Amino acid sequence: MRIALGLEYDGKPFCGWQSQPGGCGVQDALESALAHMAAHPVRVHAAGRTDTGVHAMIQVVHFDSEVARPESAWVRGVNAFLPAWVRVLWAREVDAGFHARFCAERRSYQYLLQVSPVAPAVLHGKVGWYHRPLDVAAMRAAAAYLPGEHDFSAFRAAECQAKSPVKQLYRADIRQHGELYLFEFAASAFLHHMVRNLVGSLVYVGKGEHPPEWIAELLGQKNRTFAAPTFSPDGLYLTGVHYDARWGLPVCERSLTGCMLPSSMAI
Amino acid sequence: MRIALGLEYDGKPFCGWQSQPGGCGVQDALESALAHMAAHPVRVHAAGRTDTGVHAMIQVVHFDSEVARPESAWVRGVNAFLPAWVRVLWAREVDAGFHARFCAERRSYQYLLQVSPVAPAVLHGKVGWYHRPLDVAAMRAAAAYLPGEHDFSAFRAAECQAKSPVKQLYRADIRQHGELYLFEFAASAFLHHMVRNLVGSLVYVGKGEHPPEWIAELLGQKNRTFAAPTFSPDGLYLTGVHYDARWGLPVCERSLTGCMLPSSMAI
Repeated sequence: MRIALGLEYDGKPFCGWQSQPGGCGVQDALESALAHMAAHPVRVHAAGRTDTGVHAMIQVVHFDSEVARPESAWVRGVNAFLPAWVRVLWAREVDAGFHARFCAERRSYQYLLQVSPVAPAVLHGKVGWYHRPLDVAAMRAAAAYLPGEHDFSAFRAAECQAKSPVKQLYRADIRQHGELYLFEFAASAFLHHMVRNLVGSLVYVGKGEHPPEWIAELLGQKNRTFAAPTFSPDGLYLTGVHYDARWGLPVCERSLTGCMLPSSMAI
Repeated sequence: MRIALGLEYDGKPFCGWQSQPGGCGVQDALESALAHMAAHPVRVHAAGRTDTGVHAMIQVVHFDSEVARPESAWVRGVNAFLPAWVRVLWAREVDAGFHARFCAERRSYQYLLQVSPVAPAVLHGKVGWYHRPLDVAAMRAAAAYLPGEHDFSAFRAAECQAKSPVKQLYRADIRQHGELYLFEFAASAFLHHMVRNLVGSLVYVGKGEHPPEWIAELLGQKNRTFAAPTFSPDGLYLTGVHYDARWGLPVCERSLTGCMLPSSMAI
């Protein structure tokens, strides 16, 4: 039978989602814990392959198992075998046609940036950091150029393996609350490093290096070398994966506002 | 000359504030970084000696140095020698009569507790956790017995070295926002494990094990063995140290609401 899981993890101790020969991927930790519960080797497939240091408030995966276990065993049982920085939030038996990656219709990412003279200590690795004030109005004006179907080659890592650089971006917005800036993006799918490259260029606009229209120029030029450097992974969170309701999955959206930050965090 | 510093640190990687032979205390990391800047050994004195795993949004310390350095050197220079999970927030030259511990008139602590079926992964070590719903009204009614001058022996660790168990508690309150519960305490000074013991007993009230009046009984009995077990250090933060204005120190209050959590976090 096929089981879907919702996961939360801190990306800092891992070398990214994907399984690695040394076993340092989140996938390695999860497959090992699942194998303990299933008593057979397990291969998982994830909705989003997050990079080194990137966190997930929600990641959705699926796997096949020959053994019948109550859904609670796939949650509490598996959590007992996982390091504390990875938790299974829910488990659900799904139709054999479900695929965590190929059935995902939309992904959401949030980037939490702290703007303060001194870098964060308590939230080190959990938030990005910039040392000087940023113009949030200019960044929001710049972000307004992003929604729609575009060739995002300007924000694509050289190693990106996606077939096409054309993606549908549904949402790009920035909210500020004191020292904290929350960037929110939703798209059909994201290119490699796309969110961190977008944040990097929006921060360039925020510090006044370029006007908001620069983002439109970059989209038109389709050239990665003209955009800003890739921003740190520290503040990046996978926060949602959207599936058709027919798959019957539990909640697959976990915004930082409402989980880590109160939902009253306003613009 | 005498210098005061404001610090933020994540307590998880340390064996508490206090210097240890193995060098695992926050004090060890700070004294080593200060010695690099001062080019002579430095001994620091702190307002609050936090336990293993306890964090500080603000800790105030002082030290004496023979060398003149601009205040920015004691911030940016020292930060360059510190691990990323300890940051100097500010430095200020102070009168030779100032003492970070003995001049502190009031300390504030906050305890951040997540109540959810599955333990936090991203905020592992940064928040306490309880798996079942808590009655916040009952906990607030219980906390209302705490302010005032009391013998806090019921909430005092066996190893506590304070001369007297009598302390003046100025504030004990609990705010809830979704899954997050924020406990706030302010007192002249705290006994060893006092906040974690108070949180433990308030959680007992919140889960219905005892009525709110139990807290008043515990105060009257003055017997540690009748109160609840010490709660985890994970969610405990030193958030304020109050000094007389004549010392001219920068901000010594850094609530989790406003720094880590937006200030709009309401009851």
